[in-house]
Amino acid sequence: METTFSYTHLFSFTQQVFLAMGCSEADAAVAAKALLAADVRGIDSHGVARLSGYVRLWEAKRINATPNICIIHETPSTAVVDGDSGLGLVVAPFAMQVAIDKAKEVGTGWVSVQNSNHFGIAGYHAMMALQHDMIGMAMTNASALVAPTFSNERMLGTNPIAVAVPAGNEPPFVADMATTTAANGKLEILQRKNLEAPMGWIQDAEGHSTTDAHALKNKGALLPLGSDKEHGSHKGYALGSIVDIFSAVLSGANYGPWVPPFPAYVPMPENQPGKGLGHFLGAMRIDAFRKAEDFKKDMDQWIRRFRDAKPIEGYEKVLIPGDPEREFEVIRMKEGIPLLYTVVEDLTEVGRKFNLNL
Amino acid sequence: METTFSYTHLFSFTQQVFLAMGCSEADAAVAAKALLAADVRGIDSHGVARLSGYVRLWEAKRINATPNICIIHETPSTAVVDGDSGLGLVVAPFAMQVAIDKAKEVGTGWVSVQNSNHFGIAGYHAMMALQHDMIGMAMTNASALVAPTFSNERMLGTNPIAVAVPAGNEPPFVADMATTTAANGKLEILQRKNLEAPMGWIQDAEGHSTTDAHALKNKGALLPLGSDKEHGSHKGYALGSIVDIFSAVLSGANYGPWVPPFPAYVPMPENQPGKGLGHFLGAMRIDAFRKAEDFKKDMDQWIRRFRDAKPIEGYEKVLIPGDPEREFEVIRMKEGIPLLYTVVEDLTEVGRKFNLNL
Repeated sequence: METTFSYTHLFSFTQQVFLAMGCSEADAAVAAKALLAADVRGIDSHGVARLSGYVRLWEAKRINATPNICIIHETPSTAVVDGDSGLGLVVAPFAMQVAIDKAKEVGTGWVSVQNSNHFGIAGYHAMMALQHDMIGMAMTNASALVAPTFSNERMLGTNPIAVAVPAGNEPPFVADMATTTAANGKLEILQRKNLEAPMGWIQDAEGHSTTDAHALKNKGALLPLGSDKEHGSHKGYALGSIVDIFSAVLSGANYGPWVPPFPAYVPMPENQPGKGLGHFLGAMRIDAFRKAEDFKKDMDQWIRRFRDAKPIEGYEKVLIPGDPEREFEVIRMKEGIPLLYTVVEDLTEVGRKFNLNL
Repeated sequence: METTFSYTHLFSFTQQVFLAMGCSEADAAVAAKALLAADVRGIDSHGVARLSGYVRLWEAKRINATPNICIIHETPSTAVVDGDSGLGLVVAPFAMQVAIDKAKEVGTGWVSVQNSNHFGIAGYHAMMALQHDMIGMAMTNASALVAPTFSNERMLGTNPIAVAVPAGNEPPFVADMATTTAANGKLEILQRKNLEAPMGWIQDAEGHSTTDAHALKNKGALLPLGSDKEHGSHKGYALGSIVDIFSAVLSGANYGPWVPPFPAYVPMPENQPGKGLGHFLGAMRIDAFRKAEDFKKDMDQWIRRFRDAKPIEGYEKVLIPGDPEREFEVIRMKEGIPLLYTVVEDLTEVGRKFNLNL
């Protein structure tokens, strides 16, 4: 059911597709790298499996392959970037670079982005800061799939938050999480396999928690991190809201139920208050707080102490955020990236459109 | 079982206690205001009920009533503040003011704090930004009560995150949440009443989820937001870790299991890597991103749209973060603050130490 491709093979194919859409050489390379970061890190739902979706958005003229991405407002530590309907995979790295440049100058940089599209995995953009001895942050809003606590209406996207922190001898701390109990990608796997979902992941059309993995397609909704009020779903709802506000209300993008949908066949919400979807990127220079060397020594000690925490019997060890993805990265760069048959078929079809062989 | 006191009465008493400890007039007023913000907003566990705890820390010479709070490192958008073992209730407002002043100059301000103590509710400090048309953020680490996913060892405090966002005609958005499934204060209520806790709040000495509300005292631990791996506890663990790193690794305070305990009778952890406990405060000027007027118009629309979301049958309405606390505030400023008999007794005892009548 799976075929394995090397990273370089998939990278070249993806880059060719973006070039065929009309992207510049530089943009096609940036976009392919950002998109494939998901596959490499084991977040299969957000990688090449979505390439055909990006192509369809471009066909529907919702994505501009040759955007004029620019800063429309700025102060020494902040900026708002207009993505000009470009690929989020290109717009977000541009905005993150602006944040990094500002952090070099005044200690931190914070960039809110309007008029963008989906940007792949948040972790990729946050991690851009690491090589500069900075802490990186990335968030994005997305089309509404999540019901706030007590709500029977989808109001928020899965709105992820990523934070990347450099260490010294230890690998970096990289948290990258949807603000929902479960990512939509995990639910899609259960749907494909016709398995039940754990209680607390989704609610049905009446707003009751259900194990029916297909409920999301039948007017149900994903649940915020916490699952129900008694277990803190109002906190997951608040976190998703913060992402929405920082990404879109601060930039002038669309928020809440007005965020543009990823599937090109879904009509745009009416009376949209802003432009495209929004991101929020941040960079903090470590030595704007203390000597990078001292910080890294403490960060190494933090990581080692947590890794050495006594595990519950039956579990091997306590993990540091980013550990599972880094293990995937080592394996997949060596052994290749396995793609499901349906994804291979989908990519072959994309290739056909542009006379490209997968 | 309860006696009700007016805000002004409790404020005056609290201020007198801090003065009697040796605090300056200004510091005593700031500390009393910050502490009582919890009672006013309905977060009873963090208000005057903790006054005796602060006094005991002062008696144990872990709190310095006359600290020389100062900036030890800074850039245009960042600073590290040394709290000189002062009351967090005084140190955090100082640091937040530094963040606000920097935001006035360069758009945002970010302050990491070392050598501090507990600071009351995070929301109070974040809300300081609102009157300046800024978004405020506040976090703090705290002594270890929380077990990371798969861990049978307490490694993190309840490490709250607060974010306050100004609106126009609508009241502000104020999220203030522990990064655990349930706040410790809620558990204390169940313990007092000898009730069971819901599954997913705590684990027992073996690391298994339990309904025994007393398990925390018997080598158990609070669980991160998400409760278990299947419901995203690794996300709550990551959030609590981010708070710990921003508050303490970035400032040079103690982190993880080395954070000083609140109860003065609990010995200090050995081999502490830093100074005191840590906070992280931030301020972002709205008009560093877009016109404050435009932002507030959109923020009003955001709030109204979410408030109008269709509720699940049986629930009255969807709430905006900060709604419940604001309702408490209206009632308690008018009708007074009810204190449990045990708290009244405790405060009377504190008064006796300093020849003050409650």
